[in-house]
Amino acid sequence: MNVESKGKKGTVRTLGILTGGGDCPGLNAVIRAVVLTAEREGIRVQGIQNAFSGLIHNQFTELDSSKMDHLLQYGGTILGSSNRDNPFQFMMTIDGERRPVDVSETVMTNFRKSGLDGLIAIGGDGTLKITHRLFQKGLPAICVPKSIDNDLLATDVTFGFDTAVGVATEAIDRIRTTAESHGRLMVVEVMGRNAGWIALFSGLAGGADVILIPEIPFSIDAIVANIRVDRSAGKNFSIIVVAEGAFSKNGDVAVKKIVDDPTEPRRLGGIGNVIGNLLEEKTDIETRVTVLGHIQRGGIPSTYDRNLSTRFGVHAARCAINGEFGQLVALQKGRIKTVPMADAAEGQRLVSPDNDFVQVARSIGISFGDET
Amino acid sequence: MNVESKGKKGTVRTLGILTGGGDCPGLNAVIRAVVLTAEREGIRVQGIQNAFSGLIHNQFTELDSSKMDHLLQYGGTILGSSNRDNPFQFMMTIDGERRPVDVSETVMTNFRKSGLDGLIAIGGDGTLKITHRLFQKGLPAICVPKSIDNDLLATDVTFGFDTAVGVATEAIDRIRTTAESHGRLMVVEVMGRNAGWIALFSGLAGGADVILIPEIPFSIDAIVANIRVDRSAGKNFSIIVVAEGAFSKNGDVAVKKIVDDPTEPRRLGGIGNVIGNLLEEKTDIETRVTVLGHIQRGGIPSTYDRNLSTRFGVHAARCAINGEFGQLVALQKGRIKTVPMADAAEGQRLVSPDNDFVQVARSIGISFGDET
Amino acid sequence: MNVESKGKKGTVRTLGILTGGGDCPGLNAVIRAVVLTAEREGIRVQGIQNAFSGLIHNQFTELDSSKMDHLLQYGGTILGSSNRDNPFQFMMTIDGERRPVDVSETVMTNFRKSGLDGLIAIGGDGTLKITHRLFQKGLPAICVPKSIDNDLLATDVTFGFDTAVGVATEAIDRIRTTAESHGRLMVVEVMGRNAGWIALFSGLAGGADVILIPEIPFSIDAIVANIRVDRSAGKNFSIIVVAEGAFSKNGDVAVKKIVDDPTEPRRLGGIGNVIGNLLEEKTDIETRVTVLGHIQRGGIPSTYDRNLSTRFGVHAARCAINGEFGQLVALQKGRIKTVPMADAAEGQRLVSPDNDFVQVARSIGISFGDET
Amino acid sequence: MNVESKGKKGTVRTLGILTGGGDCPGLNAVIRAVVLTAEREGIRVQGIQNAFSGLIHNQFTELDSSKMDHLLQYGGTILGSSNRDNPFQFMMTIDGERRPVDVSETVMTNFRKSGLDGLIAIGGDGTLKITHRLFQKGLPAICVPKSIDNDLLATDVTFGFDTAVGVATEAIDRIRTTAESHGRLMVVEVMGRNAGWIALFSGLAGGADVILIPEIPFSIDAIVANIRVDRSAGKNFSIIVVAEGAFSKNGDVAVKKIVDDPTEPRRLGGIGNVIGNLLEEKTDIETRVTVLGHIQRGGIPSTYDRNLSTRFGVHAARCAINGEFGQLVALQKGRIKTVPMADAAEGQRLVSPDNDFVQVARSIGISFGDET
Repeated sequence: MNVESKGKKGTVRTLGILTGGGDCPGLNAVIRAVVLTAEREGIRVQGIQNAFSGLIHNQFTELDSSKMDHLLQYGGTILGSSNRDNPFQFMMTIDGERRPVDVSETVMTNFRKSGLDGLIAIGGDGTLKITHRLFQKGLPAICVPKSIDNDLLATDVTFGFDTAVGVATEAIDRIRTTAESHGRLMVVEVMGRNAGWIALFSGLAGGADVILIPEIPFSIDAIVANIRVDRSAGKNFSIIVVAEGAFSKNGDVAVKKIVDDPTEPRRLGGIGNVIGNLLEEKTDIETRVTVLGHIQRGGIPSTYDRNLSTRFGVHAARCAINGEFGQLVALQKGRIKTVPMADAAEGQRLVSPDNDFVQVARSIGISFGDET
Repeated sequence: MNVESKGKKGTVRTLGILTGGGDCPGLNAVIRAVVLTAEREGIRVQGIQNAFSGLIHNQFTELDSSKMDHLLQYGGTILGSSNRDNPFQFMMTIDGERRPVDVSETVMTNFRKSGLDGLIAIGGDGTLKITHRLFQKGLPAICVPKSIDNDLLATDVTFGFDTAVGVATEAIDRIRTTAESHGRLMVVEVMGRNAGWIALFSGLAGGADVILIPEIPFSIDAIVANIRVDRSAGKNFSIIVVAEGAFSKNGDVAVKKIVDDPTEPRRLGGIGNVIGNLLEEKTDIETRVTVLGHIQRGGIPSTYDRNLSTRFGVHAARCAINGEFGQLVALQKGRIKTVPMADAAEGQRLVSPDNDFVQVARSIGISFGDET
Repeated sequence: MNVESKGKKGTVRTLGILTGGGDCPGLNAVIRAVVLTAEREGIRVQGIQNAFSGLIHNQFTELDSSKMDHLLQYGGTILGSSNRDNPFQFMMTIDGERRPVDVSETVMTNFRKSGLDGLIAIGGDGTLKITHRLFQKGLPAICVPKSIDNDLLATDVTFGFDTAVGVATEAIDRIRTTAESHGRLMVVEVMGRNAGWIALFSGLAGGADVILIPEIPFSIDAIVANIRVDRSAGKNFSIIVVAEGAFSKNGDVAVKKIVDDPTEPRRLGGIGNVIGNLLEEKTDIETRVTVLGHIQRGGIPSTYDRNLSTRFGVHAARCAINGEFGQLVALQKGRIKTVPMADAAEGQRLVSPDNDFVQVARSIGISFGDET
Repeated sequence: MNVESKGKKGTVRTLGILTGGGDCPGLNAVIRAVVLTAEREGIRVQGIQNAFSGLIHNQFTELDSSKMDHLLQYGGTILGSSNRDNPFQFMMTIDGERRPVDVSETVMTNFRKSGLDGLIAIGGDGTLKITHRLFQKGLPAICVPKSIDNDLLATDVTFGFDTAVGVATEAIDRIRTTAESHGRLMVVEVMGRNAGWIALFSGLAGGADVILIPEIPFSIDAIVANIRVDRSAGKNFSIIVVAEGAFSKNGDVAVKKIVDDPTEPRRLGGIGNVIGNLLEEKTDIETRVTVLGHIQRGGIPSTYDRNLSTRFGVHAARCAINGEFGQLVALQKGRIKTVPMADAAEGQRLVSPDNDFVQVARSIGISFGDET
């Protein structure tokens, strides 16, 4: 049995489950897998509503297999989620003033009173950190990692990412026909604040000409030069896929000037609009910008995401049933593993410039805007 | 034979075809249908590139059945299109000054010299008007109507519209899971400058709570009241579908103030953002805005659009072969008809407030933001 | 008020609703529209389970708006359906023998006892006839037409048909790549027992070379001749779309011999296999057969079907609320109408050989296997 | 440089490329990646038509980047493929008799005369073995593995598989609504002659109740028992996913009797029909069978398959350019590797009974028909 484990096999009778952070296709499939696995072992599952809020306000809902129909196919989370419920810094109004209060002891007490023997918390970086602190206070917990951006270091892949890449790629496919028909530059802004995985994967799959990601500093002039080469070679359109955080680190002076200028109207629409405007100015080619936004994180999960979610859910339930708490379930080199929460909390999975997808993209002529 | 006809059956040997205005799923399917129909009658087809530009600059490309593979399934137009090529007001630089010049005689001459016996012009309002003027000057032409917004008075349906509605509805389906999971207001801005058909059809199909269209003046307060009723009835999220031209006529004072204020940053993102911001302010409910943009007009045409395009193309080719020029091909009450161009040029198909879709939507509780 | 009407406006307090016959995308959307419309008028709706079985066995389920979530997007029927429950010929075991019994009086009694003031029956030909007979016995009823094959005379379009055509077309798109890659004949059998609408619409949209439908007698030799012409013109593959009832009327001698021979193994796989085998024999070209089957009638309804279903549901609810019974709701020339059940019960909507879709298909070179 | 290598970096000027065996989504994406990579290095690419036939009959087609548009999105292979062209056993008619002849020397000669410096052969088991023998005769070759069933031992994943699983899962999603609405057993036969990967992955993702694969012997009685348990627990339908080769090894006596009986009509429709018929007989529950067939292997590749194909193509081109021949490109633990052809030719990737997907499926109650 695992060193960090706080429970004991056979003593778990009831599990609680919650979903934290932004929603993502596959959350419901994890919930379903946990419930089906537990039920077959004679273990009850209580859904905790709206992430940690449910533990603060005692909002529970009984889950059983009769409520799991269609959850494989349905995006989002039936438990609700929240980003504003950190029990260690819960916003309360005290003496007419709004300030953060540590209500973690309330959470511990509510958890015990509710008859739960273990918690499965599905969520990203924030949820993981909160859960780890609760675990350190004695709450028996397992984490299932979630990040639509696929930027968690502990796991090779997160569910929802494949669906997001699919939605973005289909959008690029659609936008391509307009680009070709009108000889335009089309800028497509996709998700990815810190990591460029969605831009990289969808840009490669959609046949982008330029991919801009946070990990590779770019220059507008290099992109313009790239577009000019394409034009002179007879290609009359270009597709530029931009991660929403493409400019988060460092980069082009012209972009920086706009982004840093609070009176600059072009920055309001996000990095996609800034880049689209600059490219149109510099190339004099008609340019259009599409910001994909929330359609990337909702809807029917892909088959890959359904199966990864189901695997995560089953393994999390098994860990809980075996009393192996303090762990994060993860996929590493194709296998489901558990990682101690303490180790999992650090670091981000970023795109390395020598990642094979980047190298492959360069080999077929895709620019990352960094040529000299 | 038709009164307006300028040709004579049996004298047509070569047809020209062009696509004008914004691209749209189904353009290629019209081209394919024209080429396949003509070829079986022993008639050649010349593709004219980039709308009327091709007639100004003599850019032609021979089309035959061997080049028609996959065109049913492929969005956009292989002929290219343009919005900046009106031969009656062609922008030229003369004496260092850029101004519009009437080059329609050049077009007439090029058309005759190129050996074409008839022109099939696929396009919207603008293309139709130009073609009609050329027809009046003696150029034998047939029009095929195109409008992604489905707002042409002469035809009950235009191709591309069904595909656009499908894309918008799928986006609303995806956005719904986030709305539910987070208890948010989600604003989805769809196409529709003058007519609200896409918003109406996709909002009804996607299960929207509120639909805002140009034809029905709305008030922010009415929408807020509607959302409050839903909340008090236990529904924790709302989906608001907004046509991009929802505010083109008249409407709410608060919206008008923002839209009319050139220094107001919220107007930059379009009406969807203005409404999203106002709703969040007034309801204090977390709100997100998605502007679907160009993904609505590209990509694989729906089966309906493939078939309507094919029907339009075959009928246009037959008209041309029979020398029945000066006509617009149209769908009326399920049948393909021809309408004299002169009659077709006037008016827009707008959503009447007593349209059945509007009434049906109201019956199931959808608000148009106009309740008192 | 309508002549056939048996009720009176304002007296309807509770409606029953049932779904009969084979399932179809859009049934749930009709149920949802009826419930939402009725609820806003203060009228309760009882779901009757498993078609008329529910009225025989008193199986009801209360429906309200809280249960209507996701029904727009979900195929099939939450009420269940059945083909084996005709109350006028209900199969019962009496004295050890299974025989049909008229239990319609039980149905009338159960209906009255259950407190229902009106019935909305959604179904095809069979359901319509049963409902009409019950109406004649005094049961206040409204019908909503359903036929995945779109073969009801009373309505121009039935819901589910557009979805089925979409699924079939996507399948043809997929099969095309194999046909091209291997230079094969690919036979695709689609639904359509009596009417060839699905084959006609999906064949036209999918770019079929040959379409075989029940309404147009075909000959294998004509198809073979057609394939040979294509081959000699350099086209190395052919796609043949076959309605499952393509041979229901009369036709080719070779096919008839197989279909009529009970010992002939090739008939077991259906008409698609018979035709595939004969074509491979006669052309010596590698041939593959795909029978699409049930995937055509399930899953997410298309936007068109969602909206048609919603319109049908709202209008049916309004009729019932207004006490206008004995009617079938129908779409005619783009408008929702009501048709007296008596008139609606007769006749099938078949493909006329001079239907525009047939003529258009012939114009672009599609064969119906009937050339001489 | 690799030991098996027969070339020398810098000496490769022209590459040939062919596709062998059954088609698969992603073949065109491999071709595109090879051409784009080679072109940027100044290397020409000749497409060889119809697999090895093109080398026997000297059928070549020049490939360059201008012909690569849309290939990412397009299934099948633009080069054509064939299963009947093994140069070591080429079927010829000699003295009026059809028999296999070794024409491999012709292939070697044609290859040299055509000016090719290296061959990239994309194909499955058969293509790999032929290519290896040609390599042993001195033909410099690289293999890219292809198997829609994902059953090659040398690579963890093959392209096309993810698309096939996606198509199968969507079909199961559609079929589910009919199963639920009618309380039926629905049997879905998917691809997988020797390996059950498609059945396992799509069954898990589609929420199947029973999955039958070649690697796990099943018994009809166990399935029937499983269905009865579900019914008594209130679940009125079951979905049974069957790999086409589910019975290839050993298994149920009743199935064996039918499959072995050449006069048994039920065997003609394949294993899905045999099982469907037996289940309906034994349970007396209405049962329907759908054989998905060729729709699983065609059409638009998924994003995963597009990217895997592109990675394979780029790496194969690089190997060839570097003169590293005799290798198979493969994906192992997330990284692209090369494997000597000699090692790659042996063995099949089968589903182990203790594979995590199998164990996970069992944990949530999916039966493999092997319970006692």
